[in-house]
Amino acid sequence: MHYQIVRYILGMVMKVEAVLLLLPFLAGLVYREPQAFSFLIMAIVSAAAAFAMTFKKPAKFVFYPREAIVSVSLSWILISIVGALPFVINGDIPSFTNALFETISGFTTTGASILEDVESLSHASLFWRSFTHWIGGMGVIVFMLAIVPMTGGYNAQLMRAESPGPTFGKLVPKVKESAKILYLIYFGMTLVQIVLLLIAKMPLFDALCMTFGSAGTGGFGVRNTSAAGYTMLQQVILTIFMILFGVNFNAYYYLYLGKDKKQAFQMEEVRWYLIIIVISTTLIAANVRSYFSSAFEAFHHAFFQVGSIITTTGYSTVDFDVWPTLSKGILVLLMFIGACAGSTGGGLKVSRVIILWKSVRQQVSQYLHPKSVSVIKVDSHTQEKSVVTGVLVYFALYAFLFVGSMFVLMLDGRQDLLTDFTAVTATFNNIGPGLAGVGPAKNFNALSVLSKYTLMFDMLAGRLELYPMLMLFVPSVWKKH
Amino acid sequence: MHYQIVRYILGMVMKVEAVLLLLPFLAGLVYREPQAFSFLIMAIVSAAAAFAMTFKKPAKFVFYPREAIVSVSLSWILISIVGALPFVINGDIPSFTNALFETISGFTTTGASILEDVESLSHASLFWRSFTHWIGGMGVIVFMLAIVPMTGGYNAQLMRAESPGPTFGKLVPKVKESAKILYLIYFGMTLVQIVLLLIAKMPLFDALCMTFGSAGTGGFGVRNTSAAGYTMLQQVILTIFMILFGVNFNAYYYLYLGKDKKQAFQMEEVRWYLIIIVISTTLIAANVRSYFSSAFEAFHHAFFQVGSIITTTGYSTVDFDVWPTLSKGILVLLMFIGACAGSTGGGLKVSRVIILWKSVRQQVSQYLHPKSVSVIKVDSHTQEKSVVTGVLVYFALYAFLFVGSMFVLMLDGRQDLLTDFTAVTATFNNIGPGLAGVGPAKNFNALSVLSKYTLMFDMLAGRLELYPMLMLFVPSVWKKH
Repeated sequence: MHYQIVRYILGMVMKVEAVLLLLPFLAGLVYREPQAFSFLIMAIVSAAAAFAMTFKKPAKFVFYPREAIVSVSLSWILISIVGALPFVINGDIPSFTNALFETISGFTTTGASILEDVESLSHASLFWRSFTHWIGGMGVIVFMLAIVPMTGGYNAQLMRAESPGPTFGKLVPKVKESAKILYLIYFGMTLVQIVLLLIAKMPLFDALCMTFGSAGTGGFGVRNTSAAGYTMLQQVILTIFMILFGVNFNAYYYLYLGKDKKQAFQMEEVRWYLIIIVISTTLIAANVRSYFSSAFEAFHHAFFQVGSIITTTGYSTVDFDVWPTLSKGILVLLMFIGACAGSTGGGLKVSRVIILWKSVRQQVSQYLHPKSVSVIKVDSHTQEKSVVTGVLVYFALYAFLFVGSMFVLMLDGRQDLLTDFTAVTATFNNIGPGLAGVGPAKNFNALSVLSKYTLMFDMLAGRLELYPMLMLFVPSVWKKH
Repeated sequence: MHYQIVRYILGMVMKVEAVLLLLPFLAGLVYREPQAFSFLIMAIVSAAAAFAMTFKKPAKFVFYPREAIVSVSLSWILISIVGALPFVINGDIPSFTNALFETISGFTTTGASILEDVESLSHASLFWRSFTHWIGGMGVIVFMLAIVPMTGGYNAQLMRAESPGPTFGKLVPKVKESAKILYLIYFGMTLVQIVLLLIAKMPLFDALCMTFGSAGTGGFGVRNTSAAGYTMLQQVILTIFMILFGVNFNAYYYLYLGKDKKQAFQMEEVRWYLIIIVISTTLIAANVRSYFSSAFEAFHHAFFQVGSIITTTGYSTVDFDVWPTLSKGILVLLMFIGACAGSTGGGLKVSRVIILWKSVRQQVSQYLHPKSVSVIKVDSHTQEKSVVTGVLVYFALYAFLFVGSMFVLMLDGRQDLLTDFTAVTATFNNIGPGLAGVGPAKNFNALSVLSKYTLMFDMLAGRLELYPMLMLFVPSVWKKH
């Protein structure tokens, strides 16, 4: 481990966060809230720490994968700790554990909350809470790479470690340009959503925060009723944009900037993602028909919930914990599938599920024709064996971490099995609400401190796709070389 | 598909079953029960059908993997249908669906029952019900290979298709000899258990049936209270033998007949299997301490339940559905892990979990040292890549089939999520009882017919390790060649 390099990168990330912390400060100033100053304080502290950490450049930029991967996981932990302190300082969330839970839940775009009463928070804190979703959605490292001039061949490794999905496809050869294009698309779509919500007469503050929450597929709202209090039109806009932000961003690149626009419509992952949404919505709408006064209303709420859950956002317009078993079961299944790779959504990702399924088919055909050689293709590209094995092992590791987390939660002895199961499901896949004790009408505050820290690990592990967080526990990673 | 070969093998299996059906007939004669004659009738029918099916030998024994694999799955379906009819004929289980469920549950050593009142059955039916466990435990094909003279190089393929575990290690070069040795060990241990239970003053009929149930790791009992009505000594004997039958039989071969007895103690899988039992028992005993009058009693029942569940037997001495979350959660986890490969137990198998875990470790080390070449070793033997990939894909297929089955059960709309989840868990892993609506004090009768057939598929898929049942749905398998 070259500690100098890690120190330097962490310093650069802190610089970025110092600037970002000024936004909630400004939001709070508009509402003349004293709580706003806690964000200014932390911005100054971060800036000072950042300059101290980046003052001395590393002697040499020899970059092994371990430096990249550890820099990414430590960056996420650091920005969460720094981002949690304003809540503690201004008293909006007095407990550090709870403030850290809320901030990690924000940056990882989970949206799981320990708050009983969201509306009692200051506007500054609410803004920051939602804004962490927007930053975490596309990634703080990707953001840094897009705006900060950095040299060296390690940019690609950093970006790979933070980007979701089984393969890492740069849009253009230069990493910096790829990062810029991603944030350009992200920023543009965010802007469109805000404007549409304003046209649909949502108040500006709500429009900003709800857009941050859907763009990052996070799920923090600014009202105690999540998205239930908004008009149907506003809810429809939210549904559509949640789903759009769950699409692989490569599709938008092809559509807006690429030479061959047809490529966008040929992406298997996006097609399956949309098919799953249509089938799930139809099944749930039929299943919950009797819960609503019209078939249209049943469809509307089914569509919202499906869009919210498969994209791992976590907004809700109804308490789906009271829905029948089939509907709840489908929603839990969608939690695992998740959105597309290369989107802001979490979960296993549709593309991984596709590769898992194709591996099974390949194995069956190998069984029947032992001498034949078959390959797995996605979008008519042959997938390298290392990618396929990577996905298979990812799924195994995913199961191990899931079971391990379940085990720690069960030690509490306070919750039933379904609560423990869906608490891990909802955090590990970065959704937010689960079922039963952590359902949409409940929150995560009743869990023990040990369980909360376990779920914080799960949220980070889920967002960073397991390995970066796992590496922190491998002793050989920390050896100097 | 060479249909002649499949027809011939099915006929041979029917011959074996015709003979086996005479045993419950004799048991019924002892008790002078009219119900016994239904078994004689089916024995005669089976024998007649078997002779018709094997009268004409196949023109040639050209054997592809598909013939072997389809013969195995069809054999299991056929023996279950034939084995279910006596229950229908003698009126002990009038519904064919329920009789088939019970028989498949028997042969696959699941032990999930649709019966409300076991004690109302005739002794003949109870004997057959338990005896199907004994046959299914080691495998009806393996039994056939051991006793019926068959020529041709396809024996190994048949045995491989029926034997559990990620790799298939013949004990000795000749398949017939391997099958004989397995049944010799199996028969010997069964005899010892019967004698010990008799010494512990269990009635002969109970001793026979409970031994069949533990030897095959099945779980059907002859009393409504499962194993709760027996004395503590009898329960301890059951516990120890359940655990012994969950050990990889290769260990016994090394121990009794092998040249190097040390090999038995060097088997990683067996070591981990025992470690998991010790840890789970300790945790559960501590967790349920307050449910019992003494620490010893808590330990005793924890040990019985752990031994019963990890070996996928399914006997119970208490209703563990009322135990605290942690204990229930550990038991559900053990349902998935299952026993050792090459034992009579089900589940994923300890060896598969070991290989999955080592794959994760290998991936981590590859991430840190991209240029190094690392292999996965079990018992200091390097595992071939195809074996490791096979295990990884097996796990993916396992998850797909699990989710698909869950989905069908949820369509019922009558059960809660935990019931659906553990109903699939308990049948797919060949355990028997689950939690909530299918807990140890309940049964599977309340499920819909569709759900029952889905769980029958799961029981067969679980016992035959997925592929043989899956192949039945691959159209190209059925093409003539």
